[in-house]
This record gives sequence, C-alpha cells and structure tokens, in this order.
Amino acid sequence: MAGGDGYKRPFFLGIDLGGTNVKAGVVDDTGRPLSSVSLPTEADRGPEHGVHRICQTAREAVLKAELTLSDLHSVGVGSPGPMDLAEQIIINPHNLPGWINLPLAAKVSENLGLRAVLQNDANAAAYGEYWAGAGRGCHTLVQFTLGTGIGTGIILGGQIWEGRHSHGAEAGHIRIDISPTARLNGTGLYGSLEAYASATAVVARTQEALNAGEPSSLKSSLESGQRLTARLIFEAGFAGDLLASRIVEETAFYLAVGAVNLMHTIDPDIVVYSGGMIAAGGPFLERIKHYVRENALPIPAAKTEIVFAKLGTDAGFIGAAGCARLKFAAA
Amino acid sequence: MAGGDGYKRPFFLGIDLGGTNVKAGVVDDTGRPLSSVSLPTEADRGPEHGVHRICQTAREAVLKAELTLSDLHSVGVGSPGPMDLAEQIIINPHNLPGWINLPLAAKVSENLGLRAVLQNDANAAAYGEYWAGAGRGCHTLVQFTLGTGIGTGIILGGQIWEGRHSHGAEAGHIRIDISPTARLNGTGLYGSLEAYASATAVVARTQEALNAGEPSSLKSSLESGQRLTARLIFEAGFAGDLLASRIVEETAFYLAVGAVNLMHTIDPDIVVYSGGMIAAGGPFLERIKHYVRENALPIPAAKTEIVFAKLGTDAGFIGAAGCARLKFAAA
Repeated sequence: MAGGDGYKRPFFLGIDLGGTNVKAGVVDDTGRPLSSVSLPTEADRGPEHGVHRICQTAREAVLKAELTLSDLHSVGVGSPGPMDLAEQIIINPHNLPGWINLPLAAKVSENLGLRAVLQNDANAAAYGEYWAGAGRGCHTLVQFTLGTGIGTGIILGGQIWEGRHSHGAEAGHIRIDISPTARLNGTGLYGSLEAYASATAVVARTQEALNAGEPSSLKSSLESGQRLTARLIFEAGFAGDLLASRIVEETAFYLAVGAVNLMHTIDPDIVVYSGGMIAAGGPFLERIKHYVRENALPIPAAKTEIVFAKLGTDAGFIGAAGCARLKFAAA
Repeated sequence: MAGGDGYKRPFFLGIDLGGTNVKAGVVDDTGRPLSSVSLPTEADRGPEHGVHRICQTAREAVLKAELTLSDLHSVGVGSPGPMDLAEQIIINPHNLPGWINLPLAAKVSENLGLRAVLQNDANAAAYGEYWAGAGRGCHTLVQFTLGTGIGTGIILGGQIWEGRHSHGAEAGHIRIDISPTARLNGTGLYGSLEAYASATAVVARTQEALNAGEPSSLKSSLESGQRLTARLIFEAGFAGDLLASRIVEETAFYLAVGAVNLMHTIDPDIVVYSGGMIAAGGPFLERIKHYVRENALPIPAAKTEIVFAKLGTDAGFIGAAGCARLKFAAA
C-alpha cells in the first residue's frame, strides 16, 4: 500500500499493551489493518519508559503504513487491568509492576498528539472480534481470551460493557467450584473459571496428575527436554494419550460452564473463544459445544453460536483502534 | 384516596402472574401503588380462563383505586417464562400447564382495551425494586428472587436486559458446582445456583441431612406436625440448632457466589435479594456479605452494595406497571 490507498478513511491507531510485548497497528474505518509492529514492552523499566516504548511502537506502525501521525484520526490503547475507565487510568496491573495510577490515555495522547482512549485489553480484543472478526454482524457478543489467565469481554449492541466499577466482564473470576478443595488462581480467589481453564491451569492440572504418578506419553516428552505447555498437552491428548485426553476433555467442560454461565446472564448471539489454546482446532470446539448443550437451558443451547476467534493476536490492536473509532468518530 | 388524588398521573396497571395467584395493582408515575388485588390464578383451567382471571383481577384493582379503565395509561404483565419477548408470547411455563405459545400481551390488551406489554416475572420484580424500591436512584442493578426456584433480573442504566433469546438474567441456572455429584434442579440442569440456594433446595438439603441421621431440634418440630420449610429451618438456625445453622451458613455462601458471579460479569451498583427467605433479616444478609467479600475481586467487593428488597410481594406488579411506563410513556 502507498499511504493507505484502497483502505477506507479515517484511519485509527490501535495499541495492545502486554507485560511482555506491545503491539501497535494502523486500522481503517472497516477494521482492516494497514500495518502492525510488535516490540518488547520492557515493563520493568517503569512507566515513563513504558509510555515511550508504547509510542515508539505506534510511530513505527504509522511509518510502516506509509502514513504520518497527522493522517490518523485517534488512538485506542488496550491494557491489562485493574483500571478506572471513568478516570482513564491504569491502577496497578500485575504484569506491569510499578505502573501505579498511570493516566495512560493522557500520556499517549500527549506524546502522539492524538485523542486517545484507554480500554481493558480483553474488552478491546472482544470488540475487535465483534467489529472485524468472528462476531462481525452480530448484536451481542461474549468473548473468553484463554492465556496465562482468562480475560473476558462483553459487547452489548455495539457498546463495550464496562460495568459500574470498570469490573464488568471479569468472568475469568466467576466461581464454578464451590467445593472446599477448589483450586486457587493468581488473584487469590478460589474456584474461579481461570483456576481450571486458563493455559496456566491446564499445565498445572497436568503436572499434578503426572506428579501423582499417572502414566502418560508426556513423561518421555519432558525427559527429552520439552517444556510442559498447554500446546504439548493438547497435542498429546488428540494423539490419544489417556491422561492428556482427560485434561483436554475436562478443559472443554470447564470452558463450556463458563459459556453457559454467561449465556444464562447475558444471553448473547455468539460466544467467542480466543487465545493460544484455540490452536487445538475444530475437535476441541466440538467438545466445548457438547458440554454447552448439556449444561444450558434448551433455547440458548439451541440458538447461541459458539465459535473460535478469527483475528489471532491482531484482535487486541484492531479492537483498541475500534474503541477510538467508537469514542471519537461515531456519528 | 378518591380517584387518585395526591398521586402523580399517568397511572399504570401492573399484573404479576404466578402459577397459584395473580396480583394486580394500579401504580402512579413514581411507582407508588394506589391499590392491589390478589386472586387465585386457577391456572389448571387453561389459558382462556386464565386470561379472564388476570383481567378480572386487574378490573378489581382499578375499581379499588376508585378509577375506571379509561384512567389507565397502559398495562404491564409479568409472567413466568420461558417466553419470547420479541413475539410477546409465553411459550410453555412449567407452572402454567397447557398455556402454550400464548400471546398474553395481545390477549390482555384486547380484554382491557389498553396497550399491554409482557415481561418475565423476575425481570419485572427487579425493575420494580430499581424504579421504586431498594435500587431507587441506582444505575445498574442485579436482583435474585429466592423462591421455589431462583429468578434473576438485570437492569442496565434503566433498561431491562432481556438477552438475545429472551434468556438474559436466567442466573438461577448458572452452574456453581462442577463436581460429578452436583445437585440437580427442576429444569434437569446440574450444579445450578438454584439447586443449592432456592427455598426448595434449602428444604431438600436439610431433609437429606435429617435422613442421614444428623441430630437436630428440627426432628421434634416435624414430629409435632410442623412442615419443613425454609422459614422453619432459618428460625432453628438462628436459634442455635447446629444442623440448621450449617444450612443457613452454606446458603449464605451459595447466594454470595451467585452475587460474585454477576459482579464479575455485570459489575452493578447494587445486588438485591428478594423473596420469602429474606425474612431471615440482617444477620443473614451479613453472612452473605461476608462471603461476597471473600470471593470477589477487591474493587467490586468494596464498592458493590448488597441489600435486601424493599417492596415485598408488591415488586412484581409495581415492576410490571413500570415496564408499561418504560415502553409506552417514556418521553
């Protein structure tokens, strides 16, 4: 492309801030990306350096799209929480240590000379899929992003549901296990969806079974130096390893319970799963759907679409750009 | 009152349809009731007779308010589900046997000569508390109505969240127990909130403990001819009976998990509990709040109000009248 030919103006900048990397991209008015750039966040060097890295990544993305900042309408930033969306500050994200009460939208706006809006990263990713991915054309969408934790986003009729204390769509923390032996997650809560079905939890549950002496082909994989990851476990499961298949099956069940609980609350058109774990593909999705049908009331069980995301790791910056469009460019 | 003196016009009719009784009332523009009448539904005599009973109850309420139907602006009907709100029909409510695919709003409208709107009963009750009860002045409210089952209602910025298939706010059916021994509820779903914390479930859990031979003062109450009810169990619990106290404590925990799961999804200003069980009063509410604080993320745990409803059994018809106002009279 030369300066955005063939794309629909106005153009928006989207930034997906993570603890490890920051990804920025230029997106057109239909959610189509013109460019993207990813750089290490270097979060441990503190918030001032972090803001500099974020804006450097954004400038490189603009350059890569053969544009200048004056061609951009506005910028959206997706960040890990907790945050105060009314105040547009991040409070103290676990994986951005020392970034405390940072007015990130204002800082980015000042640096880039563009209007800027801050949004929760999982909300932004959900908005990306709603606007330009798996949820295109739907009305109401719920998304689960499966990674170290489980992020969720809720889009109601085109609007991001933020909640009254910026804690809407924190459904990775809904409690699905009331037993006294419920698992613990990183936030210190017991029995949460995230403690069972995040990639971290898949690895932990498998490791516990291996430690308990359950036989598995994973043992020889680990002895040959491979690291125990959700991907390795899913591959072993679909290759017929008994322990790994059981873990995969249980994970599908837990994820279905998460979907059902939001279906019985939000009742969306569509439930989207995203994140590395969806690389497991169609057979895994079918197992999730099986358990959704088993656990949901008949009408939502029959009518709700259950799908995997389409935008991969681009959903974050595309959705963040969409948030800028929603806030600053909506008619 | 004589013909509504001292009340703010316009006036609305509200109808709360249940399997046993139908309650109707006239409500003013601020949610204040002028009159109410309750009659047996006689649901087993079929839908045609049922519509007649509903409208008879409504006419008596109008008469009692010293008004005529021409003084009424419009009418709202709260009914058990499942229903199709887009089509304004009830599908096949469990406790209205044979009332299948009934266009209830149209039937009531025709009979009374007023514009009519149909709403889910738990949604209507939640709207009643939002408009004129425990939630007055708030923005976003979640309500749990504890009875035979658990009905829920979600009010987002003054609008009732119905969901895309009229199954929003069916949070009595969220799954909170993923164990293989999870309890079953009336709809055939395992591990639902309703299977643990409805009045029916409180009685069932207590009966099972008694059957298992746990000692309790409830035994002599039953031998003296009293019926095992949630009320009897709560009274015994607060009087120090060990078995009953444990049941009360566990119920507070389950209800807190329900609240937390909606706080991590909707993130409302306020969570309201209504229904017979709240007669247990302040000490019970304190136990629920204790478990909410233990299970919620810090910000919603600190900021969300957890309260008991204020309108008692009037919430249904007041809320139904509010639905008519929302649909037909909002500026």
